[in-house]
Amino acid sequence: MKKDYSILTGITPSGSGEVHIGNYFGVVVPFFKMAKNAKKVYFFIADLHALTTIKSKEEMQKNVENLILSYLSFGIDTEKVVFYRQSDINSHSELQTILNNVTPLGLIKRCHAYKDKLQKGLKEDNVNMGLFSYPVLMAADILLYDPDYIPVGQDQKQHVEVTRDIADFFNKNYGQTFKLPEFYTIKETARLIGTDGKRKMSKSLGNYISIFENEKKIRNQIMNCFTDSKRIHPTDKGRVKENPIFIYHDLINENKKEVDDLKERYKQGKVGDVEVKEKLLKALLKKFSQQRQRYQELKKDPVIIKNILEKGTKKAQIQAQKKMIIVREKIGITNKYSLQI
Amino acid sequence: MKKDYSILTGITPSGSGEVHIGNYFGVVVPFFKMAKNAKKVYFFIADLHALTTIKSKEEMQKNVENLILSYLSFGIDTEKVVFYRQSDINSHSELQTILNNVTPLGLIKRCHAYKDKLQKGLKEDNVNMGLFSYPVLMAADILLYDPDYIPVGQDQKQHVEVTRDIADFFNKNYGQTFKLPEFYTIKETARLIGTDGKRKMSKSLGNYISIFENEKKIRNQIMNCFTDSKRIHPTDKGRVKENPIFIYHDLINENKKEVDDLKERYKQGKVGDVEVKEKLLKALLKKFSQQRQRYQELKKDPVIIKNILEKGTKKAQIQAQKKMIIVREKIGITNKYSLQI
Repeated sequence: MKKDYSILTGITPSGSGEVHIGNYFGVVVPFFKMAKNAKKVYFFIADLHALTTIKSKEEMQKNVENLILSYLSFGIDTEKVVFYRQSDINSHSELQTILNNVTPLGLIKRCHAYKDKLQKGLKEDNVNMGLFSYPVLMAADILLYDPDYIPVGQDQKQHVEVTRDIADFFNKNYGQTFKLPEFYTIKETARLIGTDGKRKMSKSLGNYISIFENEKKIRNQIMNCFTDSKRIHPTDKGRVKENPIFIYHDLINENKKEVDDLKERYKQGKVGDVEVKEKLLKALLKKFSQQRQRYQELKKDPVIIKNILEKGTKKAQIQAQKKMIIVREKIGITNKYSLQI
Repeated sequence: MKKDYSILTGITPSGSGEVHIGNYFGVVVPFFKMAKNAKKVYFFIADLHALTTIKSKEEMQKNVENLILSYLSFGIDTEKVVFYRQSDINSHSELQTILNNVTPLGLIKRCHAYKDKLQKGLKEDNVNMGLFSYPVLMAADILLYDPDYIPVGQDQKQHVEVTRDIADFFNKNYGQTFKLPEFYTIKETARLIGTDGKRKMSKSLGNYISIFENEKKIRNQIMNCFTDSKRIHPTDKGRVKENPIFIYHDLINENKKEVDDLKERYKQGKVGDVEVKEKLLKALLKKFSQQRQRYQELKKDPVIIKNILEKGTKKAQIQAQKKMIIVREKIGITNKYSLQI
């Protein structure tokens, strides 16, 4: 990895915008680690991307609020991290409109998101242009800020490749303008098992454990968690390996002695599911107590959040506008009759 | 037609941006007529659309300058006509990005511009996303300003229909937001015959007569004009009907007596082509003398043009931003953490 690198990442407020422990260990922790060592970090709420699926005002607002509150509660260092909403920076869509003209239609047709939908049998009239063209918007999101690395999961590599292709097409026609970003693959801890014990934890599957919900809801989520299906009575010997509840304990419970003790007793049939689950709840509330408290405080004080967003937006805007001046100059949109508005 | 109607029209600086007599009688005159009776007129230079074909900075700048100078020289009433460059109003691309999400891919695939290219054998890798998605940008261009009518040629009706479809999709999902514009078909005087006597006058075919070029160039264009191919000597009897030079005389020469006299002598073999053409040149220079003078004056004084554009841009921006506040509110991009930048 380069020294003094910059990174950029966007998070789409789809689903409920609620952050669960799968997101936390899969996305938040690796991001914070990367951000800690980076020189510059751009982190934005990709609300324009969410429009491809969210068609209700209230849902959009709730999701965006949830995400902003969650990430700020995790303790983003807003002195270092440039934190903003995509829709607050006009240059994202402006650059998309411009990049469209150097982007071959064929390149976009070969992209996953679109192809997946077609394979699922969706007709072209049921795919919207937002979904189809979203790799171009993503390229604009990235290329505005010249980041060195884009942290991505394995399945998103293609998008960074498309961004590189688009940057390259532009550079070849108009001269060197955009830095080609590299992707930095996040390890597969991302794939935390869900509470159904079968699939990856995900909001859409409903097999998740929340971080910022009230205690009652989280208790319910944990109590409904799949454990060892062969174990019927608390006195039956239980399986610890690949048992979601112990996977969560290993990640969340900082009292390692307690976890070891629970595992031992579970194997011997000397502890009930309820006790294991209650202890997980307690551990979760303890681990995230600061964050949960901050979430409630921030929720009561939108002014603090607006101030944070304002600071981030201004920083991002300076960079984005600097880039757009170069881009407009290269394509000849500026001339002696141009206005600078 | 409605009373107190508003119209909107955009002109793309493709070709050379040079305005010829075919444009003048086919586009400029009908536009001025419509504009005169309209209550409000939006008229913009569609430079973002030109990016689909123009890949050179210098070409873009030259074309835009030519168009701006030409239309101002024709005497646009900039008190009434809101005159601006598309690229000076960010809302055009912002609304495009948003409208993408209510636009079915299938609708765009059925559009002319794209289908024509494919039929000409162009591969999808040689069609760019700018060309493909340009009906969405066009919808944004229009819907931002709530115009009643869009003056279009017969071949552009489809684009206005697509705009209506997109507006309708948005309104149905988010509630009434956009006015559905109607098209107003411009009569087929648009199809002025070119100087080759065969095809429509067009910049790309090179069969045109300029309005703002220097006298020498215009003389050359006129002298090379096709007349009556069967007539070899000035003493041969000539054909006046469907003879381009007389079609132009009828349009341009305000001395009707002179035209009648020339026609009569032409039929009888009593006048040479050169005299007919010299008189056309003289008539053209006379008809457009004010405009040609103004063109040269404006060319020397970019400050005047900047002031005009600034006035138009501000007016357009107020309207566009007003609309965008409503749009953002409807889709939920605004909430208690929104900034107003």
